Amino acid sequence: MIRMVLFIITLLLMGACKEANQQKSHHPSNDDQFPMYAMVIHGGAGTILKKNMTDEKEKAYTNALNEALSIGEKILKNGGTSADAVEKTINYLENSPLFNAGKGAVFTHHETNELDASLMYGNDLSAGAVGGVNTIKNPISAARTVLEKSEHVFMVGKGAEEFASLHDIEMVDPSYFYTERRYKSLKRIKDQESTELSESDDVNKKHGTVGAVALDLQGNIVAGTSTGGMTNKKYNRIGDSPIIGAGTYANNKTCGVSCTGHGEFFIRYAVAHAISSAMEYGNMNVQEAGDLVINQQLVEAGGTGGAIILDQNGNIAMPFNTEGMYRGYVNPHDRVIKIYKD
Amino acid sequence: MIRMVLFIITLLLMGACKEANQQKSHHPSNDDQFPMYAMVIHGGAGTILKKNMTDEKEKAYTNALNEALSIGEKILKNGGTSADAVEKTINYLENSPLFNAGKGAVFTHHETNELDASLMYGNDLSAGAVGGVNTIKNPISAARTVLEKSEHVFMVGKGAEEFASLHDIEMVDPSYFYTERRYKSLKRIKDQESTELSESDDVNKKHGTVGAVALDLQGNIVAGTSTGGMTNKKYNRIGDSPIIGAGTYANNKTCGVSCTGHGEFFIRYAVAHAISSAMEYGNMNVQEAGDLVINQQLVEAGGTGGAIILDQNGNIAMPFNTEGMYRGYVNPHDRVIKIYKD
Repeated sequence: MIRMVLFIITLLLMGACKEANQQKSHHPSNDDQFPMYAMVIHGGAGTILKKNMTDEKEKAYTNALNEALSIGEKILKNGGTSADAVEKTINYLENSPLFNAGKGAVFTHHETNELDASLMYGNDLSAGAVGGVNTIKNPISAARTVLEKSEHVFMVGKGAEEFASLHDIEMVDPSYFYTERRYKSLKRIKDQESTELSESDDVNKKHGTVGAVALDLQGNIVAGTSTGGMTNKKYNRIGDSPIIGAGTYANNKTCGVSCTGHGEFFIRYAVAHAISSAMEYGNMNVQEAGDLVINQQLVEAGGTGGAIILDQNGNIAMPFNTEGMYRGYVNPHDRVIKIYKD
Repeated sequence: MIRMVLFIITLLLMGACKEANQQKSHHPSNDDQFPMYAMVIHGGAGTILKKNMTDEKEKAYTNALNEALSIGEKILKNGGTSADAVEKTINYLENSPLFNAGKGAVFTHHETNELDASLMYGNDLSAGAVGGVNTIKNPISAARTVLEKSEHVFMVGKGAEEFASLHDIEMVDPSYFYTERRYKSLKRIKDQESTELSESDDVNKKHGTVGAVALDLQGNIVAGTSTGGMTNKKYNRIGDSPIIGAGTYANNKTCGVSCTGHGEFFIRYAVAHAISSAMEYGNMNVQEAGDLVINQQLVEAGGTGGAIILDQNGNIAMPFNTEGMYRGYVNPHDRVIKIYKD
C-alpha cells in the first residue's frame, strides 16, 4: 500500500517536473502579441572596439544597419513575406562596400573574389545555397533561386553561375567586386604571408559576413547569410556561410539562425543547427540555446564569432564571443542597433 | 513539516527520474565489454529488391562488403586508429566499381565525374571534406589530408585538387573514372531527359554512396562518407556527402554517423547532426535517434535513404527507409552483412 502511494506521488511529481521544464522553454514573452513581425540582422563579428573606431565610421555602420532594418521592416509591416524581407535586406548589405559580402567582398590569394550565400525557409525546411561564385552581384538572390527554382540545395562555382544566369539573376563582371580597400588588405596580408580570417581594417580584425532572420505576419521564419569569405584564402575553401546547418538554419518549430565567425568551427559544431536542436530537444529558449553553443561550446573550442536567432514568437538573441558584432533588430515595439558589447 | 517531507521526497524522486532517463540513454548494452572495437559500413540505399537481384550480383556485393569489413577489422583489432580503419575501408569501396564512389562514380550531365567526400573525428570534432573533384583517386584520403594538414574543413574543385596534389594524394587522369556501366546509365537517362538520383541499374534505383564509422580500442569514433554524386547532375550540384552535419558527423560523446540518400533532404534536415543532437539533448540511444530522423522526420518529408550509427560503447543502428541498403558491421562478437529489409 505504501509502495502504491509512493508510486502515485512519483507519477504526479514527474508530471509537475515535466511541466516546469516546458515553462522554461522557447516562448518566455510576446505570447500575447502573436501575430507579430520581427527582423534581426548582423554585419559581422570580431575585434570591434570603441577605442579603435572613428565617429565617422561608427556613423556609417550605424546608418547602414538602420537602413537595412528599414527595408525589411517595411516589407514585414505591410504583410510581405519573411523571404522577401531577408532577401531585400541582405541585398542592401551586399551592395554596401562596408560589409564583407557582395560588393564589399574580400580578395582570395589569387586576387579573385569568391562569394557564398545560403537561405532557408522555416515553414518547410526548403533551402538554397551557392558557393565560390564571382559573377553574381547578389549571391543571396541566387541562393533563393536555387531554393525556389531547382531540385537542388547547393551549387558551386561555374555551375551555380550558369544556373543563376538562366534565371534572371543579375550577373556582373568579376571586376565589379574590386574595391581599393579590400585589395589593399590582401596586399598587406600577403606581405605578412599569413591567412587572415575575413577583413583586416588595420586595427579591426573582423569576421565579415552579413545575415538576416525575419518572422512575418503569417508566422514564417526565414534565415539568410551572405559572405565574401576570408582574405587571402586558397584552394577554393568554402566556409560555413553557404552550409545549411552551419551558417544558416530555419525551422518554424524552433528558430531561424544566421552566423558569422571563424567558419571552420561553425561547420564542425554545426552551429546553426545545434542552436535549433538545443531548442527542439533540450527545451531551451533562444538565449539559452545561443549561449550554450556560442558562449560555451565554441569558446571551449577556441572558435570566435556570433549568431542572430529569432523564434516564432519574436524572441530574439544575438550572442557573440568576440569584442563586438554589428547587429540590430526591429519589431513593432522596438528598434535596436548595437556594435560593441553592452 | 509535511511540506518539508514532501520537498525531500520530491528531490529524491527527481533524482530517481533522472537516473531512469539516463539508463534509457546511449548505452543499453556492451557496457561490460568496454574497451571494444566496432565498425559499421554502408554501400548505398535504394530500391534494392531480392526479386531483381541475380545470385552473381548479390554475391559480388556481399563479398565486397565482407572484404571491406575485414580491412577495418584488422586495423582495429590490432590497436590501430578508427581514422585508419575508416579511410582504408572506404578506399577499398572507392576502388571497387560496384559502388558509386571513387572508381565507380556516376557521370554528370556534361559526361564528367564530380566526387565528394568527408571525414570527421569524434574526439576533437575536427573535420575535412572535398567536393566536386575529378582527379583525386580516393577522395576520402583527400578529405583526411584537408582535416590533418590544413586549417580548413571544406575545399572544392580545382582548389581541393591543388591542395591534394601538394600532399602526396594519388592523382589520376579524369578518364580513370570512366566505366562503361556508368556511362551507359548516363546515356539512358539523358535519353529520358530526366535527372536521376545516383545510379540506375535498370531495375534498381539506388542512392549510391559509401560510408564507414569505426570505434577503436582507444574509444575514438571516426565517420567518413564518399560518393560519386548523382547521375546526369548539372550546375556543380553538391550533395550531402561532403557536408559535415548532413552526410557525416562524429562526436565521441554521442555517436558517429554516415548517411546515404537523397542528398537535398539530408542537407535540409542536417541528418547526421540531427541524430547526434537527438542523443545529446533528447537522451535517445542510437536506434531511437536513427529511427526518429530516418524513419519519422525524413519519411514525413518524402526524403529517402539511410544512415549507419555507432556510439562509444559499440552500439550500432543501421536505419533506412528504402527497400534495401548495402550494409554490415563487425565487432569482437559479430559479423553481419545485409542487403534487404530483415
